[in-house]
Amino acid sequence: MPVNLPLPQPQDLRPIAGLELAVVSAGIKKVGKRDLTLMRLAPGSVVGAVFTQNRFCAAPVQVCREHLSALSMSQQGVRALVINTGNANAGTGESGLAHAQATCTQVAQLLGFESEQVLPFSTGVIMEPLPFEKIQAALPQAVSALGQGSWLDAANGIMTTDTQPKAYSHELWVHGHKVSITGIAKGAGMIRPNMATMLGYLATDACIDQALMAELAQEIAQRSFNRITVDGDTSTNDSFVVMATHQAQHPVIKNWLEPQAKALFDALCMVATQLAQAIIRDAEGATKFITVRVEEGASEAECLQVAYAIAHSPLVKTAFFASDPNLGRILAAVGYAGIAQLEQSHIELYLDDVHVVTRGGRHPQYQEAQGQAVMAQSEIVVRVLLGRGAHAQSVWTCDLSHDYVSINADYRS
Amino acid sequence: MPVNLPLPQPQDLRPIAGLELAVVSAGIKKVGKRDLTLMRLAPGSVVGAVFTQNRFCAAPVQVCREHLSALSMSQQGVRALVINTGNANAGTGESGLAHAQATCTQVAQLLGFESEQVLPFSTGVIMEPLPFEKIQAALPQAVSALGQGSWLDAANGIMTTDTQPKAYSHELWVHGHKVSITGIAKGAGMIRPNMATMLGYLATDACIDQALMAELAQEIAQRSFNRITVDGDTSTNDSFVVMATHQAQHPVIKNWLEPQAKALFDALCMVATQLAQAIIRDAEGATKFITVRVEEGASEAECLQVAYAIAHSPLVKTAFFASDPNLGRILAAVGYAGIAQLEQSHIELYLDDVHVVTRGGRHPQYQEAQGQAVMAQSEIVVRVLLGRGAHAQSVWTCDLSHDYVSINADYRS
Repeated sequence: MPVNLPLPQPQDLRPIAGLELAVVSAGIKKVGKRDLTLMRLAPGSVVGAVFTQNRFCAAPVQVCREHLSALSMSQQGVRALVINTGNANAGTGESGLAHAQATCTQVAQLLGFESEQVLPFSTGVIMEPLPFEKIQAALPQAVSALGQGSWLDAANGIMTTDTQPKAYSHELWVHGHKVSITGIAKGAGMIRPNMATMLGYLATDACIDQALMAELAQEIAQRSFNRITVDGDTSTNDSFVVMATHQAQHPVIKNWLEPQAKALFDALCMVATQLAQAIIRDAEGATKFITVRVEEGASEAECLQVAYAIAHSPLVKTAFFASDPNLGRILAAVGYAGIAQLEQSHIELYLDDVHVVTRGGRHPQYQEAQGQAVMAQSEIVVRVLLGRGAHAQSVWTCDLSHDYVSINADYRS
Repeated sequence: MPVNLPLPQPQDLRPIAGLELAVVSAGIKKVGKRDLTLMRLAPGSVVGAVFTQNRFCAAPVQVCREHLSALSMSQQGVRALVINTGNANAGTGESGLAHAQATCTQVAQLLGFESEQVLPFSTGVIMEPLPFEKIQAALPQAVSALGQGSWLDAANGIMTTDTQPKAYSHELWVHGHKVSITGIAKGAGMIRPNMATMLGYLATDACIDQALMAELAQEIAQRSFNRITVDGDTSTNDSFVVMATHQAQHPVIKNWLEPQAKALFDALCMVATQLAQAIIRDAEGATKFITVRVEEGASEAECLQVAYAIAHSPLVKTAFFASDPNLGRILAAVGYAGIAQLEQSHIELYLDDVHVVTRGGRHPQYQEAQGQAVMAQSEIVVRVLLGRGAHAQSVWTCDLSHDYVSINADYRS
């Protein structure tokens, strides 16, 4: 059961001019399940993308990097994305690379582009051979269905252990022209994105200069998908793509310092953050949505280090699952986070507004019943003050429940 | 149910000349449970100890450090250890420190030592006030019972969520004199020792020079307790103490290079490793004992980094629980372990003797049934070859089961 995650309604999701979708069934997952998504971008669209930092990255991630690198030296841009679920095409060696490459070549031939203009993505089980012949057989059907798919279809079409699709839209005015943003994402386990998450796509009809796109994708990922964790397991396939189709009529944005550009950036970040948080709300076995905020750090990096130590501690996560204010476990995680000069006597801890720990010890006015009341909620903010500086960072995570164990013990069976 | 962990038999545990034990009930845990252990060492005994690197270390750990530092500048040695279970005296601020100190003062007065000659230890729930008056009331009884307690009593007396006591003995000859070694340990959760584990005690009647003891304790911890992990949660109270009572008649050992000293060191390491592995065998919810061995690393540090990434991955641990050879999860963990220049095409992976991955991809001869057969065992060796150098390291861990979640969701209730 997702935590406070409303099901997206078709009418809430805005189409993006210049981007056509098709979602078909290739038979990779159970027969009849739609598992293959194709996106076509209008000429002149610009794309920025970030990928997993896992050294064991999947074949499609490697092919994406090669294609983007090749395109950066040409006048051509990305024109299509092809995404399969049911198989990650990771740990598949040379044949995996050949299959990812052949998928792009086929899409390029069917649509009349160069192979480098196609980006491939895969998600699902690792170390199983990609059933390439099924994808090959389904691609012509996907191409003829282009334009018939909705964003909701696509959000459904990329799911694995997700219990519901994740999709958001937003509208704003840029230089007097209406601009739309729509994003989809998937992911419920093996989630501790490092530069990007397990498949997130953000599209807008805004006009953004190509030179800005890579930096933009990095910045957005940094503030959204790179601040969530379910289990600390950075996936082999994490990919986050930002697409701008240039169909809106406003002047091309080349400088982030101008106010109109800032408003667009904030809106893109907002949609990406909604998607990232949706992944946590629908995380494997999650019963609680937890914000871990670390303040008064000497640097952003050390705030994140402490926040992730708390967010990854199985003991902290099981205490949340049990609604048990066993808050010493949070202090223990702060202590082992690796901040060498940390003074325990400077630590303050709040659970929502309840002041639990002061100067490293239990707050004299703290009553167990107060902690209990906060722990019983489905949304909880853990706030730690380090007393070392002026930096602050937040990460979002969930609890560790019996269902997480069940889901991951049974995933392949 | 512990994994292949025989219950220690009283007759297998050798007393250590020069060390007296008492184990009594102070009423910290349920009435009637023996929760307070006292050890008295003969004059001339030497002690080495290592403590948690958690910056949020418990009050008794702080007091131990102060006392050892004070003793190092005097002619006096440690004469007593006092250990309570049921309460960790961590996150308890100034009053926690005062209670740990007062415990030592009382023991010192009762036994006629200086307060600095007493080392205090606590284990149990964090951030609850230590019920000091109960300890105060029980100490006279503990002092009069000195000599009546056995090592098995003590191993039982320090348990928290352990399902059975952990104790081992060993005998060897040093310079023609028989020497005994006995060790006890406790710990089942919040286990990723960093410098030492949650309470391990190793005693020998051997004669070891005081100047060697600190180094010796470090080295032994490094090869045993610092190579285990249950959940990656480094405790606030980890303490490992090596005691040599100098009751054996052999010449005092001052140099580790001589063969007799090496044999003693190996025997101490062996007992410590048995105890460390016993903690994993009896870890919270464990159904499997897993050795993660990483070879061909460019350094010991990077081997450990990869081994711990595998050993801490909730996805890897749930796959072991399910006996599911979902081995791509191991590759993913290798990939995100943080080795910047890792080449996935050089990675080899074995499950026991089954060659699962070669050159970063599934081995052509690998059959799922082979992986399945190994995964069904209760003892499994995961062997990863990095293809980067000649270093190797092993860590020991367990699976992540429903019982881990249940035990930690219910711990305080």
